[in-house]
Amino acid sequence: MNDGEAASAFVPGHVTGFFSAHPASDSARAGSRGAGVTLTDGVTVTVSPAAETSVSLDGEPVSVEAVTATLDALGTTARVEATTPLPLGSGFGVSGAFALGTALAANQCFDAGRSENDLVRVAHVADVEAGTGLGDVVAQARGGVPIRLEPGAPPHGALDGVPATARVEYLVLGDLSTEAVLSGDTSALTRAGEAALDRLGERPTLPRFVAESRRFAEEADLLTDDVRAVVEAVEADGGAASMAMLGRTVFGFGTALSEAGYDPEHCRVHPAGAHLLE
Amino acid sequence: MNDGEAASAFVPGHVTGFFSAHPASDSARAGSRGAGVTLTDGVTVTVSPAAETSVSLDGEPVSVEAVTATLDALGTTARVEATTPLPLGSGFGVSGAFALGTALAANQCFDAGRSENDLVRVAHVADVEAGTGLGDVVAQARGGVPIRLEPGAPPHGALDGVPATARVEYLVLGDLSTEAVLSGDTSALTRAGEAALDRLGERPTLPRFVAESRRFAEEADLLTDDVRAVVEAVEADGGAASMAMLGRTVFGFGTALSEAGYDPEHCRVHPAGAHLLE
Repeated sequence: MNDGEAASAFVPGHVTGFFSAHPASDSARAGSRGAGVTLTDGVTVTVSPAAETSVSLDGEPVSVEAVTATLDALGTTARVEATTPLPLGSGFGVSGAFALGTALAANQCFDAGRSENDLVRVAHVADVEAGTGLGDVVAQARGGVPIRLEPGAPPHGALDGVPATARVEYLVLGDLSTEAVLSGDTSALTRAGEAALDRLGERPTLPRFVAESRRFAEEADLLTDDVRAVVEAVEADGGAASMAMLGRTVFGFGTALSEAGYDPEHCRVHPAGAHLLE
Repeated sequence: MNDGEAASAFVPGHVTGFFSAHPASDSARAGSRGAGVTLTDGVTVTVSPAAETSVSLDGEPVSVEAVTATLDALGTTARVEATTPLPLGSGFGVSGAFALGTALAANQCFDAGRSENDLVRVAHVADVEAGTGLGDVVAQARGGVPIRLEPGAPPHGALDGVPATARVEYLVLGDLSTEAVLSGDTSALTRAGEAALDRLGERPTLPRFVAESRRFAEEADLLTDDVRAVVEAVEADGGAASMAMLGRTVFGFGTALSEAGYDPEHCRVHPAGAHLLE
């Protein structure tokens, strides 16, 4: 499976607002419940044939376990080149997007004949097993403002969505180790995440999503001091914001952050899910 | 629920290539299994507050049962205005798109607080009960090249997809009564549709999708003479095409129809599903 024409895919970034962790021995069933927002800022991945695998991000060689595991699962080697305006390790699901884009583009490049659900499952398993994501991939495959009702990849997981389009603002303060948070006691986090999910289900709107994300960040005790300072400044200005799970990143809708005097990046809710490019 | 700001949604057109019909007393569980392609040509729906419901398509008043039933289910009246380059009754799922766009835009306009799955279910039930569609709505909500694994709306149905992007060509020869086909004996059709679905599942690619659609049209005995003439002319030219279910419409990918000397409409596979517009 080493010939074919280069193929490209785009995968939206994904910021989780709240979640509960659901480990499982079968990685396709493992994952998270919760809700997040997919972004028009995302990862564009191009796959082309190569006898030996190489992976680059924005022109620099990188080692991303979820990407190499995805190629392994598809039984191929390839040159994988990605570009993104998003930082790694700051809660945007870049590793999941990178893996899913690799799966879609490699399937096309090598005419592997897999279905979309198969490719989502391959990338989800790779991201979970690398320890870099618990639910970004399934959310990124759907697009919009995904609600993860049940953990896991197709056919195990279940999704819904908040029907919404909006400008998204985000401010990156630094990175945070997902591993450090998820390797500790996650029972309080899971209780808070499941309660937030129930309340969002009662009224799945953007304001409710941000409010539940904010409450979760507090209850799960995940706010770093620098993130808290920005969130509280936005609130003092009459806006609403919360923290990207997991990164030292603040997000809000409309002009919540800029009106509070910050100079955030901005994009929009991504209307689609991951898809091949022409 | 009669005040709010006008809101708009876009829903892709959807051409079914093959299907099996699965009636059920619960319309949310009724539907079809099969596969189709969603189109960048679709229906744009704008909903605004009004004390009495009015519905128009391309500026002309129309009566579309699936649309009024959708508003009824949401407990509201509204002015509903839609535009589309697609013809009604020719196998593009315009009624389903109109209903789903109405559901999304009305939810936004009236801040109804429904989830995406809820809105898809409302539109699916309305389209099924009007007798105008059996699976377009769930496919249009997903986008791409949807495979309907199990019939029905969320949470009952199940979808997969053929990962693909392509130019789509289509030639409309006239309309066809969905009701007349579906009110007869559908057992041969259902057998042919289920066999096609199994074979597409083995290798979910665009060429396989067209080939299975073509075989289904033959086995289910649905080809009209004029559609058959075009499909066979495309094949004589070395291309592949089949019939939109259900309409006197021929579709193919790339330049299959134009290379055979026809002057088809063209668009692309829609990468997203239905979504609100800014």
